[in-house]
Amino acid sequence: MDAPPRRGRRPGQGDPVVVRALALLAAFDAGHRALSLAELSRRTAIPLSTTFRLAGHLLAWGALEKGEDERYVVGLRLFEIASLAPRSHGLREVALPYLEDLHEVSGQHVLLAVREGDEALLVERLSSRGAVEIDYRVGGRMPLHDTGVGLVLLADAPRPVVARVAGGLDAPAAERLRRWLPDVRRLQVAVFERSSPAPVSSVAAPVRDGLGQTLAAVSVVVPAGSARPQAYAQVVRATALAVSRGLGHRPPRTG
Amino acid sequence: MDAPPRRGRRPGQGDPVVVRALALLAAFDAGHRALSLAELSRRTAIPLSTTFRLAGHLLAWGALEKGEDERYVVGLRLFEIASLAPRSHGLREVALPYLEDLHEVSGQHVLLAVREGDEALLVERLSSRGAVEIDYRVGGRMPLHDTGVGLVLLADAPRPVVARVAGGLDAPAAERLRRWLPDVRRLQVAVFERSSPAPVSSVAAPVRDGLGQTLAAVSVVVPAGSARPQAYAQVVRATALAVSRGLGHRPPRTG
Repeated sequence: MDAPPRRGRRPGQGDPVVVRALALLAAFDAGHRALSLAELSRRTAIPLSTTFRLAGHLLAWGALEKGEDERYVVGLRLFEIASLAPRSHGLREVALPYLEDLHEVSGQHVLLAVREGDEALLVERLSSRGAVEIDYRVGGRMPLHDTGVGLVLLADAPRPVVARVAGGLDAPAAERLRRWLPDVRRLQVAVFERSSPAPVSSVAAPVRDGLGQTLAAVSVVVPAGSARPQAYAQVVRATALAVSRGLGHRPPRTG
Repeated sequence: MDAPPRRGRRPGQGDPVVVRALALLAAFDAGHRALSLAELSRRTAIPLSTTFRLAGHLLAWGALEKGEDERYVVGLRLFEIASLAPRSHGLREVALPYLEDLHEVSGQHVLLAVREGDEALLVERLSSRGAVEIDYRVGGRMPLHDTGVGLVLLADAPRPVVARVAGGLDAPAAERLRRWLPDVRRLQVAVFERSSPAPVSSVAAPVRDGLGQTLAAVSVVVPAGSARPQAYAQVVRATALAVSRGLGHRPPRTG
């Protein structure tokens, strides 16, 4: 889970058939939820006849389904298996009641994210209809360096991850990031301001498992200027601690 | 999606490698969320060396991950791809705000399910902490013939599905089912009483897509005897219509 993302990777001729079948699944993304056979073949660089044969197996098993227009879509069977993933639905099962409480008292967006390689992946999002506009989608990826949940996840990530993320930024941004991370670690909370698509503040805190490892981050996202973001720090931390407790974490008491 | 479920099916020696790789994924279920290499091999009847090689590919891609005890678990990458499935997360994205409203006014369980073959599959569940005990899990399967959402889905299912489900019941239950379905179709709502694990009533209504096809069912599940279940029929139907509208459905007006 610490390898750099390789979403754009295309299997070559010599790749085993399993790698090619997985490449067909990876051809789908938020902008391409339905693909024709020709599109599948083109996006994976797998010959049309092989694509047809492999897609047939995926279809028979239920990893793919045919939509109304005969294009392929991701199948429900994949959702069924994915629902057993400890880092998504397993985590969500424990977290959801506490996220709902946070959503109720804040009335804004509540996010739950985990780190996947050098990015954050959104596992849950609860949003009120009137909440400020954000463009994060459950199952979608978010940058680690400019989201609240991302900073929390990055603060406890292995050094090589921090190095790679910082390496992708310009010098002032990388410097700022390196200055922030110790504060996030010390305060157990990250406050981040973001200006697009709408100006928002996010306040995030870490969720830990029974071994004390940071497994996820919880945040609220509120319109910038609506309240001092720090006003949310306590409730977000308390929510993250409640979820951690549900995962078997026993935080050391400082008092 | 209309084939009988074949969850227990094991690939034989002659099955292509893709089918075997998919069988490794299908070896996981709610009772087996973490499997050792030997367990994976045993549950799929695939030789140990082949299991190791195929699991390696699934691990490299992220469909599987290694847990703390070195056992295999379902990976986050599968959740990421599954989040693009129109019948699970796609549907959920549209439905969630309305489900939250229904959850808020009913204060009980709210379920969203789709039909997968001869069973219902739970796509979303919102539950209050104090709500009556139920044993349904997001991503888990439920019988069509003795759940509210199941009856709604069955009422609009193709005849062979109804025949297979009725064929699996004893004669009085099959007879009762065949008597109920026309009522569900006419009233656009199903009321179902269930006694285990706790006595509950569920009230369910159909969600339709832009073509008028029944895509899903919404229900509330309340403790038996807490209120006349029929009292929930209107709000559940209105919620299902709101979700349908979000999916492009324009219901014919009867007034």
